[in-house]
Amino acid sequence: MTTASDTRPDLDFCTELAQQLRVDSVVMSDRAGSGHPTSSMSAADLVAVLLGRHLRWDLQAPDDPHNDHLIFSKGHASPLYYAMLHAAGAIDEPELRTYRRLDSRLEGHPTPRMSPTDVATGSLGQGLPIGVGIALAAKELDKLPYRVWVLCGDSEMAEGSMWEAFQYAGWRGLDNLTAIIDVNRLGQTRETMLGHDLDAYAARVSAFGWHPVVVDGHDVAAIDRAYTEAQHTSGRPCAIIARTLKGRGVAAVEDKLGKHGKPLDDATAAVAELGGFRDLRVEVQRPDLGAELHRFTATGGTRPTWEVGTEGSTREAYGAALAWLGATREDVVALDGEVSNSTHSDEFASAEPDRYFEMFIAEQQMVAATVGLGVRGWTPFASTFGAFWARAYDFVRMAAVSRADLRLCGSHAGVAIGADGPSQMALEDLASMRAIHGSAVLHPSDANQVVPLMEEMADRGGITYLRVLRGTTTVRTPADERVHIGGSRTVRHDQDDEVTVLACGVTVDEAVDAADLLAAQGIGMRVVDCYSVKPLDADTVRRAAAETDALITVEDHRPEGGLGDAVLEALAAEPVRPQVHKLAVDVMPTSGTPEELMKAAGIDAEAIVALVHRVRTASEAHL
Amino acid sequence: MTTASDTRPDLDFCTELAQQLRVDSVVMSDRAGSGHPTSSMSAADLVAVLLGRHLRWDLQAPDDPHNDHLIFSKGHASPLYYAMLHAAGAIDEPELRTYRRLDSRLEGHPTPRMSPTDVATGSLGQGLPIGVGIALAAKELDKLPYRVWVLCGDSEMAEGSMWEAFQYAGWRGLDNLTAIIDVNRLGQTRETMLGHDLDAYAARVSAFGWHPVVVDGHDVAAIDRAYTEAQHTSGRPCAIIARTLKGRGVAAVEDKLGKHGKPLDDATAAVAELGGFRDLRVEVQRPDLGAELHRFTATGGTRPTWEVGTEGSTREAYGAALAWLGATREDVVALDGEVSNSTHSDEFASAEPDRYFEMFIAEQQMVAATVGLGVRGWTPFASTFGAFWARAYDFVRMAAVSRADLRLCGSHAGVAIGADGPSQMALEDLASMRAIHGSAVLHPSDANQVVPLMEEMADRGGITYLRVLRGTTTVRTPADERVHIGGSRTVRHDQDDEVTVLACGVTVDEAVDAADLLAAQGIGMRVVDCYSVKPLDADTVRRAAAETDALITVEDHRPEGGLGDAVLEALAAEPVRPQVHKLAVDVMPTSGTPEELMKAAGIDAEAIVALVHRVRTASEAHL
Repeated sequence: MTTASDTRPDLDFCTELAQQLRVDSVVMSDRAGSGHPTSSMSAADLVAVLLGRHLRWDLQAPDDPHNDHLIFSKGHASPLYYAMLHAAGAIDEPELRTYRRLDSRLEGHPTPRMSPTDVATGSLGQGLPIGVGIALAAKELDKLPYRVWVLCGDSEMAEGSMWEAFQYAGWRGLDNLTAIIDVNRLGQTRETMLGHDLDAYAARVSAFGWHPVVVDGHDVAAIDRAYTEAQHTSGRPCAIIARTLKGRGVAAVEDKLGKHGKPLDDATAAVAELGGFRDLRVEVQRPDLGAELHRFTATGGTRPTWEVGTEGSTREAYGAALAWLGATREDVVALDGEVSNSTHSDEFASAEPDRYFEMFIAEQQMVAATVGLGVRGWTPFASTFGAFWARAYDFVRMAAVSRADLRLCGSHAGVAIGADGPSQMALEDLASMRAIHGSAVLHPSDANQVVPLMEEMADRGGITYLRVLRGTTTVRTPADERVHIGGSRTVRHDQDDEVTVLACGVTVDEAVDAADLLAAQGIGMRVVDCYSVKPLDADTVRRAAAETDALITVEDHRPEGGLGDAVLEALAAEPVRPQVHKLAVDVMPTSGTPEELMKAAGIDAEAIVALVHRVRTASEAHL
Repeated sequence: MTTASDTRPDLDFCTELAQQLRVDSVVMSDRAGSGHPTSSMSAADLVAVLLGRHLRWDLQAPDDPHNDHLIFSKGHASPLYYAMLHAAGAIDEPELRTYRRLDSRLEGHPTPRMSPTDVATGSLGQGLPIGVGIALAAKELDKLPYRVWVLCGDSEMAEGSMWEAFQYAGWRGLDNLTAIIDVNRLGQTRETMLGHDLDAYAARVSAFGWHPVVVDGHDVAAIDRAYTEAQHTSGRPCAIIARTLKGRGVAAVEDKLGKHGKPLDDATAAVAELGGFRDLRVEVQRPDLGAELHRFTATGGTRPTWEVGTEGSTREAYGAALAWLGATREDVVALDGEVSNSTHSDEFASAEPDRYFEMFIAEQQMVAATVGLGVRGWTPFASTFGAFWARAYDFVRMAAVSRADLRLCGSHAGVAIGADGPSQMALEDLASMRAIHGSAVLHPSDANQVVPLMEEMADRGGITYLRVLRGTTTVRTPADERVHIGGSRTVRHDQDDEVTVLACGVTVDEAVDAADLLAAQGIGMRVVDCYSVKPLDADTVRRAAAETDALITVEDHRPEGGLGDAVLEALAAEPVRPQVHKLAVDVMPTSGTPEELMKAAGIDAEAIVALVHRVRTASEAHL
């Protein structure tokens, strides 16, 4: 295989390198007192040949767009990953000793704290779908020849998300993507469903449009040929299906059950059996800098606005603002889960077809692709029904660990969608998204609020969730009014207000209607539009708490974890606090009209008015 | 095909019946002003032949265990489903007119409110995995020959959860399960990835261990043969891959884009084109009552207990209590996501191997199987790491819509797991599970609390989540003390207590340590163990609020949606409330020891003591 001009280390070196990776994995786990050495040992030959002869990385310039990307989808093989980075010169010996210690970059499962790690892994089945996103960026956006390599475990092949990835990459023909499947046969407690039946794996990936290469994962020459074949495969991604042995190289653990996820009993003996310590270093192949990074051209566009007093739709505003952002920023891209005519991301798709990705009904792959595009510096917005983001909650959680920037739009919020019924209603989304570390959760009540919030989302780090409505609402916010993450809008107030209603989304209209009804009865009610549920505009909430006798929160969401809880949180440690009364959806909704369902859930204007009367009566009784 | 003794309606009847189902679907959607008639029309022939000649249902005895089960995984084809039930006599004409109206059982997507519907569908990709669970119950628990039929859409084949189902059913050889894939080519906005490439579908399901039957989905004779073939296929499940046309039978919509999810423009003309109204009725085939329902025998066992003052592990208690429940109740079964030696469900697996199901690393299929086993009256407990339930959040959400009883155990809660790092830490689980309608969320602090809580879980309706710890905690609860859902435990209190700490799980130990430290400084602190986070013991919380000057909540969870918010909720509308101070994990954790990480997150004893001092100082300054 080695030609005269080939300066790469030879296969004998790779064999030795693999043993070094095994030794380092054993020792690292032993020192830490935990870790997954046997899961590292099975893949050591695969990684050694990749690092030595095929991967193209400039570790001095980890952000160079020409670099290949390598993801350890089997993140528990972190000892192998760090041993590899050590061999490549990115981690020195003293740092290698810090594995799994507090403040070390060498966490139990890889995170981007350790350069050049793109994303956190450790929740299985996520690395390959994220790799699909990076490969997509390479082909369709960057238009660069870098490759994406993903080391997968065989246990994680049980995750449906892996098959979303196989399916999508096969459909797109992502021949710059290689999955390296370390088929070591053994899971945590037992043999996997397919064991060492490599042909079964090959048939599956082949049926999903991939080119399978079955190899002995401990034969470095065969591995080397497989990587070459992967790079020469055109029109379809390649899966290298490698037969390996867990714990390979140490008889006490090799191919044995009960050896998962713990240090070896006798690390010293294991090191000796592996041929002792080595100090091999690899000069990783540099990327090909020939091709130029592609960028789109912003064509400019008009910021969408709605006239105050008209009826507008926040989901239509999402589509319009997305198209406008796409027209004015060349880095903005969009994804949708086959509901783009519902979320209105189809406006972007029509205007910028080269920057739109149809992800079909595969929400996990959609979030993963969003993370992957973000790895390469693009600014993706992804949309589907708010209810269906629940499908990808673990991916959102892990995106936060990856320090990724996610911009997610969830449409069809709450019971206000009407006839389609509860399966389509986002009712837990505020709670689940608020709990994500560093997230922002936005729920605008009118179309004009959507535009500035999305403008800010485009530049915000971390996870941002925008919740929009199926129906229309009254446009109250002037297009030039400042609307921002962390802000709120006092819709009406008077110095005689007795009570404050804090609302968001569709319930703002209800609160205003209630205020009109109460005003006719001589009762003053302040209405605050909390379009930023997290971070909440705590100052405005506290001012309302100080200036009115009671607070009412009303939201088209479950009582737990939404606006009501955010308001309580803001007031929790205040010295003086009024009573807070929550209105939220505490029933299992059915089909019906939006009006009927909001009434049934007790979150409409009538419910607010009734609650105000009850609160006033109770308060008088108390006096 | 029809023999002399065959009393089933013939194929000509089925052809007419299919047209009736189309007509009814068109009219229902037209009356409702919404719905998915074209997605119903594509599958009408498939459903007509199934209903007329193959399905075995006693609609007068929907709970008879001998009945077949039919799931519309493509739940948006609800018009077809209700039209079918109408033809079978389960829905009369007036009720058919209530489709999608408030209070109607005929919701926009099917729910169990309409008998004999087993589960709610409408979030795509869930019906087939649930069907796998029912088929598993038939084979392994009930040991009855009933069959499970699942009507799937082709768009939902993009969901990874479908492939978890194909994979698991193929591996188990569930030949009592038939997937009927309505390949109508068109999604909501565009053609699916595979369009009408039936062979590609066949290759995929075949590679996953299924027997594929490719058929023209509008040829009733071919459909009939396919169903017969499915019933005669042994050792593997069968997938009928049917080429159909969306909107079949009405030229204005047939095989056309842009016709998804809305009534036809001219329903009257469509009805005429379909041959007008019919009033056909089907006598559905009765189930074979020959076989007897199998039940296991409870062998009895000893209730596990721990001695007060010892160190115990709540996850070990989960395993021990599960094994005990299995020994004393013949209806209890268990599932795990290939971490049974971590969650300790392996204790049950060893004791009751016939009632244990290894679900591998496929959490969506695990929840779906749990729902499916519950459909057949079994009492399943399912376990994995708490973090990984996020993978199946949409399935948990839909299980609530299905009115299913779920008993989920999530282990490895919070930063207290230590070195494995954030990918493995459940930190958002209390928030997401609390937001599920009708859920209970339990987080015991010691092993003796686990047993009575699980005993109660076994009989509780709805979704119950039990959160357990990786490490050990001090056993404080006597084994004979009453511990119950909705309860709490006042660990220490005195009439001079200045402050109350409300804790759960691992933070109870920290709170007690803090109380010891403060007691030495002459400061009295009450400690309440809120092992039932939802429902919270609001009375005890309110009493603490009335009797002490300040409340502190401390939890190994994100600040949003957990114990702190539950406590605020309980006090929100109280006339007088003390300040509430939350301690929770508001950092992105890394690896480290449990002690280091709890300290870094500010949820250890030291943090509690420091907060008490700050609160007292502020309070004095305020006076």
